[in-house]
Amino acid sequence: MSLLESITGPAAVKALTPEQLPQLAGEIRQFLIHSVSKTGGHLGPNLGVVELTIAVHRVFDSPDDAIVFDTGHQSYVHKVLTGRQDFSGLRARGGLSGYPSRSESEHDIVENSHASTSLSWAHGIARARRLQGETGRHTVAVIGDGALTGGMAWEALNNIAADKQLPLILIVNDNERSYAPTIGGMADHLATLRTTQGYEHFLEWGKTTLRKTPRVGGPVERALHGVKKGIKDIVAPQGLFEDLGLKYVGPIDGHDPVALEAALQRAKAFGGPVIVHVLTKKGRGYEPARRDAADRFHAVGVINPETGLPFEIAGRSWTEEFADEMVDLGAERSDVVGVTAAMTIPVGLGPFGTTYPERLIDVGIAEQHAVTMAAGLAFAGLHPVVAVYATFLNRAFDQLLMDAALHKAGITLVLDRAGITGPDGASHHGMWDMTICGAIPGLRLNAPRDGATVRRALREAVDVADAPTVIRFPKGTVGDPLEPVRTVDDLDIMADHTDGGETDLLLVAVGSMVPTAITVAEKLAAEGVRCCVVDPRWVIPVSDSLVSLAASAQRVAVIEDNLVIGGIGSQVETALRAAGHDVPVRCFGIPRGFHDHASRGQVLDLIGLTPEAIAAALT
Amino acid sequence: MSLLESITGPAAVKALTPEQLPQLAGEIRQFLIHSVSKTGGHLGPNLGVVELTIAVHRVFDSPDDAIVFDTGHQSYVHKVLTGRQDFSGLRARGGLSGYPSRSESEHDIVENSHASTSLSWAHGIARARRLQGETGRHTVAVIGDGALTGGMAWEALNNIAADKQLPLILIVNDNERSYAPTIGGMADHLATLRTTQGYEHFLEWGKTTLRKTPRVGGPVERALHGVKKGIKDIVAPQGLFEDLGLKYVGPIDGHDPVALEAALQRAKAFGGPVIVHVLTKKGRGYEPARRDAADRFHAVGVINPETGLPFEIAGRSWTEEFADEMVDLGAERSDVVGVTAAMTIPVGLGPFGTTYPERLIDVGIAEQHAVTMAAGLAFAGLHPVVAVYATFLNRAFDQLLMDAALHKAGITLVLDRAGITGPDGASHHGMWDMTICGAIPGLRLNAPRDGATVRRALREAVDVADAPTVIRFPKGTVGDPLEPVRTVDDLDIMADHTDGGETDLLLVAVGSMVPTAITVAEKLAAEGVRCCVVDPRWVIPVSDSLVSLAASAQRVAVIEDNLVIGGIGSQVETALRAAGHDVPVRCFGIPRGFHDHASRGQVLDLIGLTPEAIAAALT
Repeated sequence: MSLLESITGPAAVKALTPEQLPQLAGEIRQFLIHSVSKTGGHLGPNLGVVELTIAVHRVFDSPDDAIVFDTGHQSYVHKVLTGRQDFSGLRARGGLSGYPSRSESEHDIVENSHASTSLSWAHGIARARRLQGETGRHTVAVIGDGALTGGMAWEALNNIAADKQLPLILIVNDNERSYAPTIGGMADHLATLRTTQGYEHFLEWGKTTLRKTPRVGGPVERALHGVKKGIKDIVAPQGLFEDLGLKYVGPIDGHDPVALEAALQRAKAFGGPVIVHVLTKKGRGYEPARRDAADRFHAVGVINPETGLPFEIAGRSWTEEFADEMVDLGAERSDVVGVTAAMTIPVGLGPFGTTYPERLIDVGIAEQHAVTMAAGLAFAGLHPVVAVYATFLNRAFDQLLMDAALHKAGITLVLDRAGITGPDGASHHGMWDMTICGAIPGLRLNAPRDGATVRRALREAVDVADAPTVIRFPKGTVGDPLEPVRTVDDLDIMADHTDGGETDLLLVAVGSMVPTAITVAEKLAAEGVRCCVVDPRWVIPVSDSLVSLAASAQRVAVIEDNLVIGGIGSQVETALRAAGHDVPVRCFGIPRGFHDHASRGQVLDLIGLTPEAIAAALT
Repeated sequence: MSLLESITGPAAVKALTPEQLPQLAGEIRQFLIHSVSKTGGHLGPNLGVVELTIAVHRVFDSPDDAIVFDTGHQSYVHKVLTGRQDFSGLRARGGLSGYPSRSESEHDIVENSHASTSLSWAHGIARARRLQGETGRHTVAVIGDGALTGGMAWEALNNIAADKQLPLILIVNDNERSYAPTIGGMADHLATLRTTQGYEHFLEWGKTTLRKTPRVGGPVERALHGVKKGIKDIVAPQGLFEDLGLKYVGPIDGHDPVALEAALQRAKAFGGPVIVHVLTKKGRGYEPARRDAADRFHAVGVINPETGLPFEIAGRSWTEEFADEMVDLGAERSDVVGVTAAMTIPVGLGPFGTTYPERLIDVGIAEQHAVTMAAGLAFAGLHPVVAVYATFLNRAFDQLLMDAALHKAGITLVLDRAGITGPDGASHHGMWDMTICGAIPGLRLNAPRDGATVRRALREAVDVADAPTVIRFPKGTVGDPLEPVRTVDDLDIMADHTDGGETDLLLVAVGSMVPTAITVAEKLAAEGVRCCVVDPRWVIPVSDSLVSLAASAQRVAVIEDNLVIGGIGSQVETALRAAGHDVPVRCFGIPRGFHDHASRGQVLDLIGLTPEAIAAALT
């Protein structure tokens, strides 16, 4: 029987002897490689935190002690240790979430996969417990070095540092990269701290030498502590965290179970906020797997080296269309620069960055800075193209509104993974962008329908110098080219079943929903409805030409993969009413709600955003 | 003739001798005290930066060198020095803006008054200039110690620190408080740096002693530099900024013109990013004014000690209704805590904090942390009430969505200054909140109409444990109590001109627009329109009872002081259509645009949000 099978919860982890831990760690790695190879998922980050997660569960008592994972994709080991060892449905509908999930376990707290939030969560939990007199309960946050580049993490550190009595353990999981090499002064500082690792080794030597004095807190231990202080001042730059007023422990070898437990015990005993700086290797276990079990390793599939996720190779992606056009554009216009928030490859700025390295700016996980810095670039004469996942634009709403739009900055945002994304679950759907962008004066938003319109949108967007522009497209494979049957002003008519007569129904199709709308129109036409499909491409603000066209129809339906509240349908309706037209408008989009992990098709089906459901609703 | 009259622009400032500077500074202070006493405005912050702004304009060449002010309310001196000395219309329609304004001057860059953005702007400008080969142009950011608590500032610092060759001068204007005493580890760290001021004095002594060696960069200068390094290591904790990799100069006496110019020259010559740490006294000049010209000082009017703005005493404010109810609530419920982002007094949490100091949490200018930390408090059993200005909620949209709403956190946000605010201009109107809140699943929003409904809303909100709630009310004086004529389900009917018959027109009035709607109804009734006014109080999500009531009317008009796009009108329309009702809806709200500084009445008039304009549009 394997050790892993005996692990039904944290108590079983605690019951193991230190000598058993390497075996458990090995079994977990094999389990993860085996499981995730079948389902896909974040393998690398989890292989890196096996010993760390074991140590956390041995030193702390979840759920009495709260354990908060930043960007929860590093919580697989935590799931395994808290009674969840059926990974067969990972990230699939009805299966385990790829992130912590309160509905799965009382050991899970934060379901959000947006980065840099864990310190704020932990601070709130710890403060609440102190206020309620619940002393003795610890709060633990596990945050990657990449997530420390986010402004929220700074806001939290700044507050926590001033709160000297909170039993708060902040574990910095330093794997020297998040999606990409971590950016900035903080990364350099962590690197400096890393180089002092010899100091901890010295301490270990000291402990070994003095092992004959078992009593903790005894005179020799205290003497050792004195030596430690002295050495620390000489050897280790105490640095940023202690400048802020935070106790710092580290750096600790994140794959040494004994060192990890000792460090966490020390931090737990301290009684105030402590940074525990742990060095881990993302993807640890790849190499043993390659050496010892090549087959199983390959079964994981092709891994995107930046995300740790398997590549999805099923044709040409929307991202690639953007990526290639950026390279062409870069050759023609020296003022075009690319900006990414720690996602160079996933958002398609890799080729541009390779070709024009001096014109690619990676700001770290810092969307706020990305947008406002871009406004500064535009002020000084450049045209920045800021490429982010649609869901992460939410982090920079204020900056897009107040820094970009209010200042009429010619910047272009390219939102990848817009609409329903699927297995990443509620916090990764890009379903809010057209609602918040609709509220931003001057902003223009384009939703391309295919590869050619992605390229055309980018060309048009970088020609706008006096307002922010946004281009949004979904995750995955771009479909076949879709040519309009004709154009009316700036509007592409994608299907026309009116035989030149009156239009009973105008279907306004937004971006990737054009094929859906075309199918809906075919179904309705078969039932005698004289209908038309229009793709306005530029959907925010609603154009006069679209208002005119819509006003001439008997009724209008708008189909979009954005929240129905405040979405394009709603904006079309508002524009029609403002122009004095009473034509009825039906809006088909994503209902106000959070949508769990499942395939994209399953979610669309669930929310009725399929040709069948829409056609049925319109007949 | 005064010196000030001769200052027509930066060149004139540069032409002055060092000996003339104290006189100029004195004249500017008198001018500001005299002018702002008549118009109101941010006096204190500007009195603190008189010498600093003079020094900046003597050392740098605006507009060739870009000067970016964080939270531009500290730019009055800059205005005076760049040819704008007519302050008679400050913050009034057609007069000078209370913030920098590109339409006023080529010396102004960032108009935004949201904090912590200047470092990102400066980084973008400096990078763009380097990319374009414009060497020799410097970029200067002036940021307060309070604004450094914002996460954006951290994101920028982290990036700037890694960009060693940028000629970027970051002036930290450390006045030891922003609106309130600055919070956190950063503040403590600045305090530590402040105590090392003696070190700079030593350097000055060294320079004086060695003055016989005039050649900059000569051997003695270099020797001095060596001494400096040595002393610095002993005397001054180099601290956080240098840990990050940023050159640090300071602390500098911000009221010593010679020391300021010397420090800025040194920073300018460095050729990389430099932090210049300047110590100023906010409100400097109050005391001389009190001693030398008591009358003029008193003419400034009663000053709010936290904002530097005159109190507006014209009756009981919305804020006070909230403030008092929080105190009562605090006595009854020990789980209620208040959270503020550096605005304790302005948002009305002062009395609560005085009564229950352990239950008031001030996080600094850190709205993101405020909301997510509050979600943590709620997870651990408390009910936080986060009070912020409506416009600053935009900073925490992602956190409200992903941390609060997705996790069903029972937190209450109280949005003060919602709707059109007036003299603070485009970036202070609270006109986006109901659009973005409409997009957040589970969230419930209440817009009270008078003092009693503010109190009632707060009571109802803190009873919601499984979703975020929002209460929003405007700036200024709360009106007379408004009793409903009757209630239908949970809806308050505020006026009924139907004589028990059919309803031609249902007016849905949101919060502070209830009196407007009542007047509109009276006007329309006089013309024979059978109309009704309903105040739903809870406007997000649109309730079934409101849908039923609206569906029974011939037509519906919604009146709100929020953006019309995605606002309550739009949400009512979406709800009606989803329920299969075709009743026409007219939306009266704030058009998609930025609205310049003017009085609240003037802006409402301009955008047609008056009873007259609405009644005319409905007849």
